[in-house]
Amino acid sequence: MFRNFKTVPYVIFGRGAFNQLGAILSEKRQVPEGFMVFLVDNAFVEKDLRNRIPARPEDLTLWVDVNDEPKTAYVDQLTGHVRDFSSVLPEGVIGIGGGSTMDLAKAVSLMLTNPGSSADYQGWDLVRHPGVYHVGIPTLSGTGAEASRTTVLSGPDKKLGINSDYTPFDQIVLDPELVCGASADQRFYTGMDCYIHCVESLSGSFLNAFSRSYGEKAMYLCREVFLDGGPEADDKLMVASYFGGMSIAYSQVGICHALSYGLSFVLGVHHGIGNCLAFDHLDEYYPEGVEEFRRMMKLHNIELPWHRLPNVAEQEIEKMVDVALVLEPLWENALGSDWKTIMTRQKIRDLYAGILTEAHQK
Amino acid sequence: MFRNFKTVPYVIFGRGAFNQLGAILSEKRQVPEGFMVFLVDNAFVEKDLRNRIPARPEDLTLWVDVNDEPKTAYVDQLTGHVRDFSSVLPEGVIGIGGGSTMDLAKAVSLMLTNPGSSADYQGWDLVRHPGVYHVGIPTLSGTGAEASRTTVLSGPDKKLGINSDYTPFDQIVLDPELVCGASADQRFYTGMDCYIHCVESLSGSFLNAFSRSYGEKAMYLCREVFLDGGPEADDKLMVASYFGGMSIAYSQVGICHALSYGLSFVLGVHHGIGNCLAFDHLDEYYPEGVEEFRRMMKLHNIELPWHRLPNVAEQEIEKMVDVALVLEPLWENALGSDWKTIMTRQKIRDLYAGILTEAHQK
Repeated sequence: MFRNFKTVPYVIFGRGAFNQLGAILSEKRQVPEGFMVFLVDNAFVEKDLRNRIPARPEDLTLWVDVNDEPKTAYVDQLTGHVRDFSSVLPEGVIGIGGGSTMDLAKAVSLMLTNPGSSADYQGWDLVRHPGVYHVGIPTLSGTGAEASRTTVLSGPDKKLGINSDYTPFDQIVLDPELVCGASADQRFYTGMDCYIHCVESLSGSFLNAFSRSYGEKAMYLCREVFLDGGPEADDKLMVASYFGGMSIAYSQVGICHALSYGLSFVLGVHHGIGNCLAFDHLDEYYPEGVEEFRRMMKLHNIELPWHRLPNVAEQEIEKMVDVALVLEPLWENALGSDWKTIMTRQKIRDLYAGILTEAHQK
Repeated sequence: MFRNFKTVPYVIFGRGAFNQLGAILSEKRQVPEGFMVFLVDNAFVEKDLRNRIPARPEDLTLWVDVNDEPKTAYVDQLTGHVRDFSSVLPEGVIGIGGGSTMDLAKAVSLMLTNPGSSADYQGWDLVRHPGVYHVGIPTLSGTGAEASRTTVLSGPDKKLGINSDYTPFDQIVLDPELVCGASADQRFYTGMDCYIHCVESLSGSFLNAFSRSYGEKAMYLCREVFLDGGPEADDKLMVASYFGGMSIAYSQVGICHALSYGLSFVLGVHHGIGNCLAFDHLDEYYPEGVEEFRRMMKLHNIELPWHRLPNVAEQEIEKMVDVALVLEPLWENALGSDWKTIMTRQKIRDLYAGILTEAHQK
């Protein structure tokens, strides 16, 4: 059985494409009492981009705080704000920001039409009703959230995505100019999400020519951006991120992402940073990828923020192991169907201990 | 202004994915009086594939003849057959075959819901109503018809596509196993449609990082298939074709395709062959591409079928020039905005004369 992969049906790409957002949304504004919800990373509150958002007076703008990774409770709270704002459904939910903001927009779109808490839908194909029309506009490149069929959330007991055919955006606007405001560090960590994703999927056991082609090109573009530099880096990284998201159709990430989920869930470490901290300890599994990753770090003067990892109690490590072990497809992709004989609880505990020990020695 | 590119929203890729077609269509069979139309290349009448088509007794199967390039009159005739078969619209139109068959399926889907003749819609964005749900299943790789927003037809006075957001398939099934029945020649000529497309788009003036990335990967895959050989060639060529179709979002083909349209329109030469005959005379414009193309021909023992070009009257050459000149975006892409000063009628006439003279000397 092959997945019948749901893609984003409308893609606009180009420097300045953001200027066309108003016209695109106009076609979706159909009833007099209608309104749109703009869900925007609050890093843009005082930026020029704020004034370029084509919001009308009747629209609702929610400035979202993504200092923490997106949580199911936050999704439920934002959904509540929209319901309080109007008794009718919005005509669209537009997410403008990095992967966290885009994931929040996807999740709010779904929760406006599905009952209960977003935590009820963490898993695969649990969503029953199509969400509200939703648009993704990345201002950082690398997560692949603009192309994927998931929205990754930390819930009461796990970090896991809402994976469904209703999750992908109906429209994405890929404008490389929007990335220019990000710091070099942010840009690097988010870009590495794509690079590491490619290392894991291309060396995994779940793969076919479709996903391999997307993954190989995404990795090639990451190398151009982070090893060669040169012009059009923002454009290339934005394509790499989209290709990385497309490549997930018939592939999976692996050990690094599984470990990173545990770090995020228990310690609140941001996904991109969690990936880098974990990947730097995975020479045994991805020797060439880790070596190249270190060259990229060196070229971009990146010091991994080990100081963000606090002292951790034994039971917190156990919780990290639990979270990582939920992600069975990732382990199977990395290590094959008998992964449980290779990757024991103790082995995962040791990997976390290695990461945390390095943090304390710095 | 950037095009808001409409993609195919559901893609299934894999060896044996054709077996899932029945399940995919089941979800679309919703009313008791409903039926599906299978539009199938009649080369499969006596092939095993025939017995694998998930047609139900209430469905209509139309075996199509694609010895000629698809014509608007043929589209209108097929649409009439469907209307005669039932007073209600079908629940789906499923095209199974090469680019010609897929283009016929797209066009019939559109003409079932739009009045008049398909010739009325040759051009850009002339279609007013969404077509019937339509599915594309390639049995040859290279045209990109599975991913594109056009269906290329020869009409009463021109060869030109029906380009619209309603044209792309709602679903494609990419099963590399389906290609195995094609002859080596057919496979080569159709594959070269993709390769030449990439040469033209990557050297053109209309391009951005999105289209370049798709085009570069498609070209790379074509080289793997036609220069290196090796395993998974059918899989790779099927991805290359899809990527080639996606790359057209922000790029265009060029001189070779423009000339090939004239050959097809006036002489009925199949698109893939017309491309190869024209490309072999374009050293001046695409030197590296033509050189590599000849290496591919040599490796695959391809003799271009010059004998298919008959003696041609002067006025027929004039008509070819007319057809080629309609395709202004192709010339502009290849030669820049002042292309008219470079590519005069006389120059195009000379290019056609060169091709036809070679044909007569063989």
